[in-house]
Amino acid sequence: MKITVIGLGLIGGSIARDLKSQLNIKVFGVDLSEQHQQLAFELGLVHEIASLDDGLKDADIVIVSIPVDKIEGLLPDILDKISSRTTVIDVGSTKHEICLSIASHHKRNRFVAAHPLAGTEYSGPSAALKGLFQNKKNIICDSDKSDKDALESALKLFESLGMITTFMASEEHDKHLAYISHLSHVSSFMLGLTVLDIEKDESQIFDLAGTGFESTVRLAKSNPKTWAAIFSKNKKYVLEALDSYINHLENFRTLILNDDVENTEKLMTFSNDIKRILK
Amino acid sequence: MKITVIGLGLIGGSIARDLKSQLNIKVFGVDLSEQHQQLAFELGLVHEIASLDDGLKDADIVIVSIPVDKIEGLLPDILDKISSRTTVIDVGSTKHEICLSIASHHKRNRFVAAHPLAGTEYSGPSAALKGLFQNKKNIICDSDKSDKDALESALKLFESLGMITTFMASEEHDKHLAYISHLSHVSSFMLGLTVLDIEKDESQIFDLAGTGFESTVRLAKSNPKTWAAIFSKNKKYVLEALDSYINHLENFRTLILNDDVENTEKLMTFSNDIKRILK
Repeated sequence: MKITVIGLGLIGGSIARDLKSQLNIKVFGVDLSEQHQQLAFELGLVHEIASLDDGLKDADIVIVSIPVDKIEGLLPDILDKISSRTTVIDVGSTKHEICLSIASHHKRNRFVAAHPLAGTEYSGPSAALKGLFQNKKNIICDSDKSDKDALESALKLFESLGMITTFMASEEHDKHLAYISHLSHVSSFMLGLTVLDIEKDESQIFDLAGTGFESTVRLAKSNPKTWAAIFSKNKKYVLEALDSYINHLENFRTLILNDDVENTEKLMTFSNDIKRILK
Repeated sequence: MKITVIGLGLIGGSIARDLKSQLNIKVFGVDLSEQHQQLAFELGLVHEIASLDDGLKDADIVIVSIPVDKIEGLLPDILDKISSRTTVIDVGSTKHEICLSIASHHKRNRFVAAHPLAGTEYSGPSAALKGLFQNKKNIICDSDKSDKDALESALKLFESLGMITTFMASEEHDKHLAYISHLSHVSSFMLGLTVLDIEKDESQIFDLAGTGFESTVRLAKSNPKTWAAIFSKNKKYVLEALDSYINHLENFRTLILNDDVENTEKLMTFSNDIKRILK
């Protein structure tokens, strides 16, 4: 079985690494960056580095793991070139615009829109981890638009990585992800920027990191290119979430300003409810 | 040696627990809440539960670990009642107003203002952990106002808990803590509140928590009473930090709104610098 992974960063590299350890699979890696090509090969993430055309030729499965703002540009070209029995899976963190962009492509039926919910704040081939997807959740969107056999092979692939797949409409996916994941990233990136801006003494940032800052700012270490693309592709819901966040912060600011200890405490008690939900 | 811990929550309880395991120390616990008294005793955090007056009588060291907005009210009373060889240490997360409030007390010299930088997002006697302070940092403020022997016994106490102490002016302390720790807490509490507000489907919060939300919202599980007091007592610097944070978020919002992918990426690349500092 020939599987081609396009984009050998954290997610693509980790998928390639796990697939390569399975019997009877030959993993081809495609990446625009020569440095990433070389690194992915040296790290043993893929059997072979290939050009896009060579990667697509006779591939059983093609996995597209590049920044979400690049997927729409490349996907029609990939679908044009694949055989009618190849399955193409994208693993981007936004889904609605990608699905819309190829809605009328004559090979839309060979495409499966997926989002494996796994990752770390690191990036590039050297961030690729063995077993990254084990026991994690995967979301497949608009599955009624995919051929039954294409969907089946995508499901088997994610299952072989140790994932549990659920299904969702692509717009629902983008909304929920904006509210929960994307907003967390904005919040953390801007926390990092604020602290770098106002705290002139870097040694204090290091010394006081253990007081809550370190975990809250963790996501600010994430890849800027990946996240600029996600915020752009999910603009509507990211802005909706961000506006609500800014409103809550401004309201809280007013309460502190007015020495309204009772109501600051009350809002934090509401927020504590997150304990119950995450339990 | 008699050590009395006033306030048997996460911090006081953990200090009591560690001290109680040391030779030749008798730990007395004081707490307003009967439930906390009973729990602390049952959990073996203290040798004895005492009233405030019995706790203070003949104590060598008194540790005050109650919400920071209650310390100023209690501290003069404690200083009035102790002997001239007793050391009183407060372990609150804000220091400047507390130090100001007893600046002219005739026993100011017996007081040491400390802030052991340790904790978890849980609270109450049942959150008290053995070894919580091991290898963590402690800050002592305005140390020139304390008698040499009082300072010495505070230093020895924190050293026995496994802490490394540094020194800082109380106003400097409050500024740095606001910028780094307190802002992180506001950011996290309001993230929790926002997500609870906009995400109507609680199961999504649980299902998608692994996508960055869980670590970013961790601090929203913290004790509302403790944090309402901290924000109130450190209002000036907390508001300064919060205003800067809201400005950065609003600026970022405008960039996303204007499809300025280049500059959203640029700001996140600046924020990435936090990697270098925390390394």
